[in-house]
Amino acid sequence: MSRQSPVPSRQKDGFFRSRWVEAPDGVEELDPVQLAPGFRAGGAHCGLKGGGETDVAVLACDVPDVSSAILLTRNAAAAAPIVVCRDDLDQGAVRAVVVNSGNANAATGERGYRDALAMQAATANALEVGQRAVAVAETGVIGVPLEVGPVLEGVDRAAAALATDGGGDFSRAIMTTDRGPKQCTLRADDVTVSAQAKGAGMIEPGFATMLCFVQTDARIPDCDAALHGAVVGSFERITVDGQMSTNDTVLLQATGAAGRPLPEGLLDAVLLQLALEVVADGEGAERIGRVQVTEAADLDEAERVARAIANSPLVKTALTGRDPNWGRIAQAAGMALAGERIPEPGPHSIAFEEIGAETAEAEIGIALGRGDAAAHVYFSDLTHEYIRINAEYTT
Amino acid sequence: MSRQSPVPSRQKDGFFRSRWVEAPDGVEELDPVQLAPGFRAGGAHCGLKGGGETDVAVLACDVPDVSSAILLTRNAAAAAPIVVCRDDLDQGAVRAVVVNSGNANAATGERGYRDALAMQAATANALEVGQRAVAVAETGVIGVPLEVGPVLEGVDRAAAALATDGGGDFSRAIMTTDRGPKQCTLRADDVTVSAQAKGAGMIEPGFATMLCFVQTDARIPDCDAALHGAVVGSFERITVDGQMSTNDTVLLQATGAAGRPLPEGLLDAVLLQLALEVVADGEGAERIGRVQVTEAADLDEAERVARAIANSPLVKTALTGRDPNWGRIAQAAGMALAGERIPEPGPHSIAFEEIGAETAEAEIGIALGRGDAAAHVYFSDLTHEYIRINAEYTT
Repeated sequence: MSRQSPVPSRQKDGFFRSRWVEAPDGVEELDPVQLAPGFRAGGAHCGLKGGGETDVAVLACDVPDVSSAILLTRNAAAAAPIVVCRDDLDQGAVRAVVVNSGNANAATGERGYRDALAMQAATANALEVGQRAVAVAETGVIGVPLEVGPVLEGVDRAAAALATDGGGDFSRAIMTTDRGPKQCTLRADDVTVSAQAKGAGMIEPGFATMLCFVQTDARIPDCDAALHGAVVGSFERITVDGQMSTNDTVLLQATGAAGRPLPEGLLDAVLLQLALEVVADGEGAERIGRVQVTEAADLDEAERVARAIANSPLVKTALTGRDPNWGRIAQAAGMALAGERIPEPGPHSIAFEEIGAETAEAEIGIALGRGDAAAHVYFSDLTHEYIRINAEYTT
Repeated sequence: MSRQSPVPSRQKDGFFRSRWVEAPDGVEELDPVQLAPGFRAGGAHCGLKGGGETDVAVLACDVPDVSSAILLTRNAAAAAPIVVCRDDLDQGAVRAVVVNSGNANAATGERGYRDALAMQAATANALEVGQRAVAVAETGVIGVPLEVGPVLEGVDRAAAALATDGGGDFSRAIMTTDRGPKQCTLRADDVTVSAQAKGAGMIEPGFATMLCFVQTDARIPDCDAALHGAVVGSFERITVDGQMSTNDTVLLQATGAAGRPLPEGLLDAVLLQLALEVVADGEGAERIGRVQVTEAADLDEAERVARAIANSPLVKTALTGRDPNWGRIAQAAGMALAGERIPEPGPHSIAFEEIGAETAEAEIGIALGRGDAAAHVYFSDLTHEYIRINAEYTT
């Protein structure tokens, strides 16, 4: 391993622009407002966000026997919509989604729970589907009760506006301080996948959360396994500020109408690219890093060391400063392995690639010399803008 | 609990200026350059720091049967002086200390270990004590081999300069980017305690480490127990950036010559005040917070929640912004308890004291409603200056 590589950036064009994403061959990019066949979406403005911005939306699947899987934050202070999706949703048969941005409906007690149920009921009513077939997702300020009346009116307007090219409205309706929508519609092997994500950190100043929705007409026999498998390599591998949100949600819906499976690796590539966009859009983030730990004693150790490095404010600021500071990597690794004696880390075992370059994606590697296990984590840097956003915002 | 208290600052004058330190009655403050009876120190400049600053020092105990205890970082990438103190030191009978600042002698391999041993041998030789009676402590850049020749010459000059009022030289010799020396000499119940500390974060940009040295003529039957007891409530309760240094060291030496014990609580108060000064001198720090977790299911849970809150960059920036942002407290607590269901935290269970005030010390409380265990952690805020120091410094 060399400490600094002269290799130029390998970033690519199009949706799969990260050098860390390997998409299957033969993927065609469609207009991302166009949803996968069988899905429609519509948005409306209900007043949660200023300036008339779209802040509530509905997404509906026209195929009654859709398969689905959902992953929800494990935060013990989970928001009301998370509780609804946990307790009041048929997670394997989600027909519709109702979302709002501007208010996370988190830490809002019994009232918040009733409001989330009301959104679910209003959507079910408007779409004439069962209430337990409607997922609820919300993002925005924590601890402020929802003005549910205008939201329910917005749900009705959004449901009336459903269209096959409603992906753009849906993407905008989940944005908070995101710099832009994160979305794609892709076609390969006669199946289509559309996806929309939001997030600018695990949690933002009042505006919380990472959300991701994926629709496809592919046949996915085991949605749970497919989603878990793809999330393990994407959303579970990222960190902005080490903070777990109260509202994180990832939903996969598959109609099977195309009668064909998803191309191998496509779901993984879509979720990884979207996850990297969430990191790149982290609060104040200017650059992304990937830390790759090798030669760990076991997987748990590899993971622990990778996260200690990725979440170290000293490593994050070194990324900002384009500084191949291996002392900080050694210190963070040593902290994660506190109490053990390890082969001394140093320039011989720590590598940097493009950390000093003018590219957005830098690589850090550390070989622990203790075994064969490996793990990696993607992370954002830590900048003045992070401090400005979080210190100057006042509740 | 009220969310914001109108009570004015309770900060005090003199050495024990934090409102969180309770010193025993009847403590007299002496000139801190004056060491406890039986101890002498001297410093010199050997070129590790610029500007002719004192960067090497020796501290010696004139009483042969001194008792001592030492606590060392558990970082697996521990520096050479830590390895020497772990493997080549009679930890219960430390007669002397040799220190330098400007180079941590960390991640320096076999050569670094030999250099630390050479410093130990030179000190033993100059003071005519056994080599295993000399503790070694170093702080400064990581990963740069020591120019040991000039250091050893400096050790000789420092040993030749030993004086009972050498506490000031010793304090300056351990400073790196500390804003000023952290030291005291106190007298109570006919015993004297002197102490010197340094640190501006668990680790700094290249300049690592927290160091603390305590000397007394009191009789301490079990130095290990006394030191552990005092450190548990002080240096183990602080965080600046959540980073564990490669060089942290705390040493207690007691001659027993006064024939009397330390007043109850004095050692705890001295170490807590010094620990709080380390936090207050954290990189870029403007304010200190104390987070107090109550009603936890058990001690481990209380500790975990307190550290999650104290190390959250969102909570730290809220402290900077004087913002009673209870949503961020609830989120961090929920993250620490991921996977569990807890009574929803909110304004009813989260309290702020003086977070919006113009004082340096603010208090955050959270009651988890799960049991009777409690824990607290002291932490610094996160400011633009932290980013500037750590992103603009380049190895």
